[in-house]
Amino acid sequence: MTSSTKMTFDLKTYLRDRQQRVEAALDASLSIGYPETVYEAMRYSLLAGGKRLRPILCLATCELLGGTDAMAMPTACALEMIHTMSLIHDDLPAMDNDDYRRGKLTNHKVYGEDVAILAGDALLTYAFEFVATQTQDVPADHTLRVIADLGKAVGAEGLVGGQIVDLASEGLTDVSLDTLNYIHTHKTGALLRVSVTSGAVLAGADDAQVSTLSQYANNIGLAFQIIDDILDITATSEELGKSAGKDLAAQKATYPSIWGLEESKQQAQTLVATAKASVLESFGSAAQPLVALADFIVDRTH
Amino acid sequence: MTSSTKMTFDLKTYLRDRQQRVEAALDASLSIGYPETVYEAMRYSLLAGGKRLRPILCLATCELLGGTDAMAMPTACALEMIHTMSLIHDDLPAMDNDDYRRGKLTNHKVYGEDVAILAGDALLTYAFEFVATQTQDVPADHTLRVIADLGKAVGAEGLVGGQIVDLASEGLTDVSLDTLNYIHTHKTGALLRVSVTSGAVLAGADDAQVSTLSQYANNIGLAFQIIDDILDITATSEELGKSAGKDLAAQKATYPSIWGLEESKQQAQTLVATAKASVLESFGSAAQPLVALADFIVDRTH
Repeated sequence: MTSSTKMTFDLKTYLRDRQQRVEAALDASLSIGYPETVYEAMRYSLLAGGKRLRPILCLATCELLGGTDAMAMPTACALEMIHTMSLIHDDLPAMDNDDYRRGKLTNHKVYGEDVAILAGDALLTYAFEFVATQTQDVPADHTLRVIADLGKAVGAEGLVGGQIVDLASEGLTDVSLDTLNYIHTHKTGALLRVSVTSGAVLAGADDAQVSTLSQYANNIGLAFQIIDDILDITATSEELGKSAGKDLAAQKATYPSIWGLEESKQQAQTLVATAKASVLESFGSAAQPLVALADFIVDRTH
Repeated sequence: MTSSTKMTFDLKTYLRDRQQRVEAALDASLSIGYPETVYEAMRYSLLAGGKRLRPILCLATCELLGGTDAMAMPTACALEMIHTMSLIHDDLPAMDNDDYRRGKLTNHKVYGEDVAILAGDALLTYAFEFVATQTQDVPADHTLRVIADLGKAVGAEGLVGGQIVDLASEGLTDVSLDTLNYIHTHKTGALLRVSVTSGAVLAGADDAQVSTLSQYANNIGLAFQIIDDILDITATSEELGKSAGKDLAAQKATYPSIWGLEESKQQAQTLVATAKASVLESFGSAAQPLVALADFIVDRTH
């Protein structure tokens, strides 16, 4: 079934269409106001391109459950605002101290550290405000649940917790697989999971559906990170749009450093196969976009 | 009427009681989880004392409109989480570079800049999550409105916008009164205003009531800032729990630097008198706590 799905579903067109809709919605979400500096800094990073994987996952599960863009697009945009905030703060000198991101100078290199910190705070804040004010055709208690789920995914129980453990593990040579898993299920996994589940919640999914999608998201989230670790070794800086080989240079614990490259690739493949099988079983051919998106994650080169 | 109100209303007991309830709720809002560092950093600043003026204003207007603590306390706590986040980020080396806050070392001096940035992000996130998950006995659409109002008050249209203009005005000798007003109505005023209006919205206030309370909040918010500027000149560092005389040393534009000390005191008195008159006219003797709180703002010594 998987191979026939691959044959009949045109992922390239699907992604291009969704990316265009997301770009347009992000552009419209934030116009320049006063003081211009902070809006420019917010837009600089928010509209710097990227795969828009999180918004697309949110739109995909909402559509899978019979929902519309009007229901999901504000949350899709909020996911990208949150993701962008985390990149801006992560790139700061006090954190990863990166000069380039997506092939462009990082936010603080252009606007200064003070503005970058505040632009991140403003994007994070605006994400919640945007969901609260812009979501349409969804019962208010479902929107509240999405706000709560977003909060859990970003805060100390999620992304921030993952970053803290990641920072604390820097330079350590004995990081365990458990710790590495904690870092990634929180630092990247939590936001990917809520990207998938929020679209479903907005469309009125039942608990069993949310649970299936949550498992799918856990599996592709971990596969995503393993591939990220692999690409840091095998891809060029040009392909990545950021410095390659950083993990090796920093002697950072990664899946390839624990498992080796081949075993890492194998693990990612297995996770993606599990993810695909679970959504096909629950949703049948309607799950085609999710199946193709899972493949996209392991097949990507940047 | 004002003087008789003052005679019959025991503000000291009122404040002590509310402060105790807020402290207990804040303490219960955030227990130590894993990774401990970030929870400890969050609690370090969240539970560092302070007047808890924002939560108390929220509880007061909710009670004024017939609401309960179950309705307002989560938002009251969220206001303090947001306020705390803004102080942590404001104290960072890239911003105001402060070593002390409320008589204690600032967050980044204890936990490092990276953890301080992330603890701020986590507190900001948790504020929205906490309102969404903990608010009781309030229709979901009212809770959503409070989340939206909090967002506006904190983001580029509010607190962050005020901080950006404040940073841009540093070292300038020709800051206009308009700019100074912009800074303060956004940097401190916006969060004080939503402290007052959110309690009312949660209790089901109508538009006219919210509008009256919003005006009250604008007036006490500006008075609060004028007094802050005055205290920076007249109080000792010990009284303030932070460095005194900082504005003068930084040649910062303040109300006393534009108006002089006496005129500044006069302006603050007038604003407070207007604030008191408006709530007494609309709510009668039920507004006693708000009247006393307005007086408290001009009478405080730190």
